Amino acid sequence: MGAANSFIKGLVCSKCKKTYREDEENHLCTCGAPLLVEYDLKQAAKKVTRETFSGRPASLWRYRELLPVKDEDNIVTLGEGFTPLLPLRKAGERLGLSNLYIKDEGVIPTGTFKARGAAVGISKAKELGVRTIAMPTNGNAGAAWSLYSARAGIRAVIVMPEGAPEITRNECLAAGADIYLVKGLISDCGKIVGRSLAKNGWYDASTLKEPYRIEGKKTMGLEIAEQFNWELPDVILYPTGGGVGIIGICKALRELQEIGLIGEKLPRLVAVQAEGCAPIVKAFEAGKRESEFFPDSKTVAFGINVPKALGDFLVLDAIFETDGRAIGVSDEEILSGWRELVSTEGVYPCPEGAALYAAVKKLKKDGWILPQEKVVMLNTGTGLKYPNVFSGEFPYLNLEAVL
Amino acid sequence: MGAANSFIKGLVCSKCKKTYREDEENHLCTCGAPLLVEYDLKQAAKKVTRETFSGRPASLWRYRELLPVKDEDNIVTLGEGFTPLLPLRKAGERLGLSNLYIKDEGVIPTGTFKARGAAVGISKAKELGVRTIAMPTNGNAGAAWSLYSARAGIRAVIVMPEGAPEITRNECLAAGADIYLVKGLISDCGKIVGRSLAKNGWYDASTLKEPYRIEGKKTMGLEIAEQFNWELPDVILYPTGGGVGIIGICKALRELQEIGLIGEKLPRLVAVQAEGCAPIVKAFEAGKRESEFFPDSKTVAFGINVPKALGDFLVLDAIFETDGRAIGVSDEEILSGWRELVSTEGVYPCPEGAALYAAVKKLKKDGWILPQEKVVMLNTGTGLKYPNVFSGEFPYLNLEAVL
Repeated sequence: MGAANSFIKGLVCSKCKKTYREDEENHLCTCGAPLLVEYDLKQAAKKVTRETFSGRPASLWRYRELLPVKDEDNIVTLGEGFTPLLPLRKAGERLGLSNLYIKDEGVIPTGTFKARGAAVGISKAKELGVRTIAMPTNGNAGAAWSLYSARAGIRAVIVMPEGAPEITRNECLAAGADIYLVKGLISDCGKIVGRSLAKNGWYDASTLKEPYRIEGKKTMGLEIAEQFNWELPDVILYPTGGGVGIIGICKALRELQEIGLIGEKLPRLVAVQAEGCAPIVKAFEAGKRESEFFPDSKTVAFGINVPKALGDFLVLDAIFETDGRAIGVSDEEILSGWRELVSTEGVYPCPEGAALYAAVKKLKKDGWILPQEKVVMLNTGTGLKYPNVFSGEFPYLNLEAVL
Repeated sequence: MGAANSFIKGLVCSKCKKTYREDEENHLCTCGAPLLVEYDLKQAAKKVTRETFSGRPASLWRYRELLPVKDEDNIVTLGEGFTPLLPLRKAGERLGLSNLYIKDEGVIPTGTFKARGAAVGISKAKELGVRTIAMPTNGNAGAAWSLYSARAGIRAVIVMPEGAPEITRNECLAAGADIYLVKGLISDCGKIVGRSLAKNGWYDASTLKEPYRIEGKKTMGLEIAEQFNWELPDVILYPTGGGVGIIGICKALRELQEIGLIGEKLPRLVAVQAEGCAPIVKAFEAGKRESEFFPDSKTVAFGINVPKALGDFLVLDAIFETDGRAIGVSDEEILSGWRELVSTEGVYPCPEGAALYAAVKKLKKDGWILPQEKVVMLNTGTGLKYPNVFSGEFPYLNLEAVL
């Protein structure tokens, strides 16, 4: 056993502030709200400096003081994190921005940022002695949790809508997960998982019903701070479905402030949604702190097709507290943004990532983003996982005519 | 302009040892053999230590003294390199090996190790003032060169067999490459490119007709050395089609020896091929230093379906000089190896990578690999790029019955 030097203290309800232990299984608060991990940041402030992290291997585990795993032996890793932060000079020039960046979560095991949540979530599940996890999923999260479960020797029960992408279904299957397809929506899958948990003694790994996934996603915020040499950007854009990424980034920055590694100014956080599924945008525009179910949602960006997120109020808090905003883009804007971004810069984002580029265009145009501001688009995965979204006609060469 | 501190000296023929300049365009030697990059290793030995690299960002550019780009401003990067080197404890145990590792080149831009060759090749092309590159490809290389070309602002002409995977064709198209499909084999595509070069003034980026791709792939060897704290493994297995990877790794280790960063002992290099396309295995078993064209080749591992490689003699040199070997595995062994590896360890290799696992099994069984030896499998890409190779039946849940 090697101590990971985590400063974890316990869990606290994100609404009523009731506290829970972290060394036993906990999911939602009795009031129904998600639990968040608390650290002893006063102690951390005394021990943790920027140099604590800088010499360590380039994975998210370099931040282990601010992660929930206590024993290093429980860390389940496929080498995730410290993804590239790339300047986009040509695309920036095209948009009139001199400091545009993309953080590319396609360069990570399983090909999406879901790997971060799965790595930390499964590691903590291992530390808690969990034997079987269960979750509903639209695809990428299920794939990531299945693969990390395989590595940990934990059984995974995955329930997916039959419409979930085949590429992610195959990952679950290859990982040896118990996978079930449902002729219904992810909300139906969630109900099935919910009813099966107690009967079977499974560990609920559903979004925000499992408190440690946020901690994994948080590391995106820690990395952005360190990769910019602790000088935060002015704006961070994030494609927002369940919203765990934006909640995690905001939590990370708050924690860095409390231990004194960054100053007071926070980036404006922007939640980007598809117009076909924009509950957060609707709430933001109405000045509300909670969203309403968005009926008949539909978008090519499958990963952000979440009509009502459990943590919507946390997303809206993060937006309002940082003077950020929520913005919607159309599927047409997503697809044309994708083409423009790939052919200009050689990055290969998922549609959710391309939505950010479309959003930056709009926000620059209406003056909300200024020309010199440092802007980061958080691309959540590789376009390789969406083989059917983008394709085209190819010219054939007539061999006889050419040779 | 920032000097990259490269120790590049020039180019030398791999057969007749004739030398060429590196500050002008050069492809094959007049004798027809590939050119290799030479460095001033005596000077490098005086200046380069292990610490030169250790504090730098985790990308292949940390080794810039041993790379061909002279001006930092010419570096075209998507954040490639320093991929995870993961212990496989459970799979090792199953096979009776206590030190089995996988280096996972799936965690890299474009999803395959081809990104390394493209990053270094395109950077050097930019340094040489190239405006248009052209190449035949079976898929992954074309995708990588297209995307890095887009980032560099260089035009890419890509000629592919119509049987090349759709997922890679789409990458080329999205990158804005001029892509042509041919009703024929990669050898037909090569002929078309060859005839078009002079007429159009294009830069030939074909495998081994372009001397800098090897330098990019070489960094896999440099990383293995550094990631093992300069204590080399006993065996490195590599899926071998064109063979540039194994040639590059061998070149890297020789260079590290010459500048004194590693000792005399080299790992035994193993070229793994599919039984359906095994020209190197056939040559190795006959004790020959060159291979013969392997007719009617066929394998699920599309990336190593290369019936006759231009650099075959360099691959066989690397094998014989390190007391390594070549070994073939069947498609059935590849597929069952894949399933076993994914479900045991959570890694998600391409079929070429899975072939290594099948090979390790055989080599351990027949005693060529010993139980305590440190063994590295170099997985060349993510399984996500092969959505049709592995799939299965999924059980459906009857919603009415469950809820």
